[in-house]
Amino acid sequence: MLKNPATKYRPFTPVNLPDRAWPSRTITHAPIWMSTDLRDGNQALFEPMDAQRKMRMFKTLVAIGFKEIEVAFPSASQTDFNFVRELIEGGHIPDDVTIEVLTQARDDLIERTFESLRGVPRAIVHLYNATAPEFRKWVFGLDRDGVKTLAQNAARTIKRFADAATDTHFTLQYSPETFTGTELDFAKEVCDAVFDIWQPTPQHKAIVNLPATVEIGTPNFYADQIEWMHRNLARRDSLILSVHPHNDRGTAVAAAELAVMAGADRIEGCLFGNGERTGNVDLVTLALNLYTQGVDPGLDFSNINEVARTAEECTQLPIHPRHPYVGDLVFTAFSGSHQDAIKKGFTMQKPDAIWEMPYLPVDPNDLGRTYDSIIRVNSQSGKGGIAYLLEQSYGVVLPRRLQVDFSAAVQQLTDDSGHEVTPQQIFTLFEQEYVDSQAPLHYVGHSLSERGEREHIQLTVDIHGKRTVVSGAGNGPLDALMHALRTPVRIQHYEERALTQGADARAIAIAEMAGTDVVGNAFGVGIDANLVTASIRAVISGINRAYARCGDDAQQRFFDAVLREADHAAV
Amino acid sequence: MLKNPATKYRPFTPVNLPDRAWPSRTITHAPIWMSTDLRDGNQALFEPMDAQRKMRMFKTLVAIGFKEIEVAFPSASQTDFNFVRELIEGGHIPDDVTIEVLTQARDDLIERTFESLRGVPRAIVHLYNATAPEFRKWVFGLDRDGVKTLAQNAARTIKRFADAATDTHFTLQYSPETFTGTELDFAKEVCDAVFDIWQPTPQHKAIVNLPATVEIGTPNFYADQIEWMHRNLARRDSLILSVHPHNDRGTAVAAAELAVMAGADRIEGCLFGNGERTGNVDLVTLALNLYTQGVDPGLDFSNINEVARTAEECTQLPIHPRHPYVGDLVFTAFSGSHQDAIKKGFTMQKPDAIWEMPYLPVDPNDLGRTYDSIIRVNSQSGKGGIAYLLEQSYGVVLPRRLQVDFSAAVQQLTDDSGHEVTPQQIFTLFEQEYVDSQAPLHYVGHSLSERGEREHIQLTVDIHGKRTVVSGAGNGPLDALMHALRTPVRIQHYEERALTQGADARAIAIAEMAGTDVVGNAFGVGIDANLVTASIRAVISGINRAYARCGDDAQQRFFDAVLREADHAAV
Repeated sequence: MLKNPATKYRPFTPVNLPDRAWPSRTITHAPIWMSTDLRDGNQALFEPMDAQRKMRMFKTLVAIGFKEIEVAFPSASQTDFNFVRELIEGGHIPDDVTIEVLTQARDDLIERTFESLRGVPRAIVHLYNATAPEFRKWVFGLDRDGVKTLAQNAARTIKRFADAATDTHFTLQYSPETFTGTELDFAKEVCDAVFDIWQPTPQHKAIVNLPATVEIGTPNFYADQIEWMHRNLARRDSLILSVHPHNDRGTAVAAAELAVMAGADRIEGCLFGNGERTGNVDLVTLALNLYTQGVDPGLDFSNINEVARTAEECTQLPIHPRHPYVGDLVFTAFSGSHQDAIKKGFTMQKPDAIWEMPYLPVDPNDLGRTYDSIIRVNSQSGKGGIAYLLEQSYGVVLPRRLQVDFSAAVQQLTDDSGHEVTPQQIFTLFEQEYVDSQAPLHYVGHSLSERGEREHIQLTVDIHGKRTVVSGAGNGPLDALMHALRTPVRIQHYEERALTQGADARAIAIAEMAGTDVVGNAFGVGIDANLVTASIRAVISGINRAYARCGDDAQQRFFDAVLREADHAAV
Repeated sequence: MLKNPATKYRPFTPVNLPDRAWPSRTITHAPIWMSTDLRDGNQALFEPMDAQRKMRMFKTLVAIGFKEIEVAFPSASQTDFNFVRELIEGGHIPDDVTIEVLTQARDDLIERTFESLRGVPRAIVHLYNATAPEFRKWVFGLDRDGVKTLAQNAARTIKRFADAATDTHFTLQYSPETFTGTELDFAKEVCDAVFDIWQPTPQHKAIVNLPATVEIGTPNFYADQIEWMHRNLARRDSLILSVHPHNDRGTAVAAAELAVMAGADRIEGCLFGNGERTGNVDLVTLALNLYTQGVDPGLDFSNINEVARTAEECTQLPIHPRHPYVGDLVFTAFSGSHQDAIKKGFTMQKPDAIWEMPYLPVDPNDLGRTYDSIIRVNSQSGKGGIAYLLEQSYGVVLPRRLQVDFSAAVQQLTDDSGHEVTPQQIFTLFEQEYVDSQAPLHYVGHSLSERGEREHIQLTVDIHGKRTVVSGAGNGPLDALMHALRTPVRIQHYEERALTQGADARAIAIAEMAGTDVVGNAFGVGIDANLVTASIRAVISGINRAYARCGDDAQQRFFDAVLREADHAAV
């Protein structure tokens, strides 16, 4: 049984704000969005993004329309520092985009932070320090005044560096950390003290960011806190009031929306709610919630599947099938009565009329998706649907990278036809693409023999129609095969499984081939009753497909290698 | 670019309720919980649960402490009807649990619904019909009066059946569907009309359920709607006011919480937010949100991992790694400063004191979990962590069923030691459990030869120390192996992959063996540089492990089969 919570947990202390105004408000325009995918999101990954994935994420964020992007915590790691330099020196920052960097309240870290920003035309420098009682008590051993002094000292250092850098327009941002757990009067006191030093003006505003570093109450409580600060902060007309909700109680989206009604101007969050623990608030859901209320979010998710796949690949985390707007299942009605109502709705809905559709709060077409009464695959489908159909109908389990590879081929087919495709058509396409690709190497047969620990292979192939036999040895059939062929490509990965049950089931082998001359990795698939034959066919098919991705010179080199070996082994 | 939303989408119409009381309230006791996992959740699955999975889910819900469980839509399918009968006739419903069934507003369906309930001591009959304008207009072609009459007629039929069944205590429930999209005055009018017929009393209440079938506004809007109904419904003291939020805008948890503040007595939802499209509200998050406020939720999630694994297996849908309270990553701090603060917090936290921990709103121990500064595996870890470690450290990818199988072994180890285990210890345990199990069949060697399309195997094994050779033929090495051994177990599934990159990498093969004499399926694993040898070793290891799961008689039969074949083939 759960322990008695009353003796262990303390409820949040409500804000005394009987005349709160936010519950009667609605949101009529978009807030300023700030993406922290590359900072708060990135630090919460099993494997933080490498430079290449970071750049890909940055460009995606820019393409979506973010104008403020927190790109790094440059004093915390060399990788982060280098990424900021690469953005600046590589000229990757568009004129209408401002990068932001985070720093702790220590002079040496602040110096390093400004160093990372040298030469950038615009930047936001984001200072934070912990102000909540449990941090004061347990982490720093400081009282209120001690914590305030710490923030003031850091603010002075930042002002000195910002004033000195004449070629950069700096916007300064301050966050009292775990604002939600900090006494409101103290949060105001520290913020006011910092902005006394920074002296923002209505023409050159500073940003006050009030993070729900940990979500500790119902979302109306956060709204009350924000409205209290909105009303009580000094220099309010010189400040942009920013919120930064986390999702510990599953209500970050609500907290952000109510906070905007309560006076917030700006929201920090991540795509699809990535971030520490339960994540930052999901900026995609927030933006599309506005969109479906007739409010232009200023962010473009008209091809949401592409954004989703990029985010999944950069973070290596999945998006849940029920995630609002983007999950694989959210435009799918399984219930027959739902399907009927939606079908009638689609018949009645006029193209330019107000959207009035049973069960669907948004037109899937607006997001580059379609309504699926059951799982169907058409030009709007993600790789999830394709993989699901192949597995359910044919027992084919695609590794993730092959899903990505194959979805491009399916897209091509559906774009060309304009129609939904059936599982059978998908499987046929899969066979055409990957299984037993026959040129330039056409598999004819092989024989294996074991001599002690070594496996020997004699492989018969037709090369451009010419019957050729090559042979090799290794510690297994594939090793022997690769020695026989001596191609410049190598096996990056292979896997194999039964297509159906039983020892006599056919096996499917999937080989991923890579090589310096090959553009991207190439997959090959073999299907055979004999698991060894399936593997060999998969590798040869993969080699053929890799060959097709080489330039002319590389193709020639590739061939010279195989043919030289073939001459040597000719029988 | 996204289309201009202003011409296509209409904002919700705010409720005029300037004196709303809910924003000043807090939640001080748990609502009545109603699980619709077996109805709304089940109808939204790729593969709805079969009878066995339904029963498993039912028993899990009962164990958690749900007292009201919607178990079926009996008039919609024979499976659902049969499940209700099985619950009743099998005596599976505890005395303090009431089952609920859903019906549409048609006389024949209502009759069938009551038929399914024959003999049950208590039940809730849940009537719904669509009342929202787009349904009236597009689906039914009825005006307000027509829709109201439809509800009244169905209410009369239900009352007749309920009054006639003298051995069952019926509670009646009515839902105006897509309440959120229905004009409030009309929702009240239809509800009042239905309860005029049912005549509930404060001693024998009826349930009025107000579903956010589709979430169409910020959660304060739903709270306003609920407070309006709470104040304006006739016979309020004879009604239990229930809410049923869906998650289209990602704010279902917030909507449910604010609705309780606004006057709701009861919440319908599903474990981990399963349900149509974006899902029903997540009852686990709601309950634990109360718990962390010092309020006893009346539901027991003290072993949340077990509940999570059951839900995942019954629904065949994953729980996201960032899902509040239960996700794999939510008690993991990746950031060094977070880790430091938490470490200090754990040092300072006194066992019986109020929980005051930086970054962690709940003590993971209360949920049967632990805090992981990085991914660690100990006695509280789910199979997700184990699988992750094996994959990251050793390239071993466990199929899902093997994850389940192996986690029991890891649990045993960690329970015995009481300590965290390292990836290396896990891999060693994995080898001990599955790789090359050597009794009763001890693999010595094999040779393969191809004759035309047939593969022939000569397999040398020691059986209880006696050197034996068996042989067989088939359309591949495994088929030949199974013919050689003629055991009563069969290969249910196998898969194989490279452990590392390259053609000379070792292969890992995983075989899942099944047989009528075998208790559960048995996994065997083989690791070898030669992919065929790996497969053969995996199958033999799996046969050995299957043998251990047979009774004595079956073990004898099993042996007779192999030995007979061995005598036959002896060389």
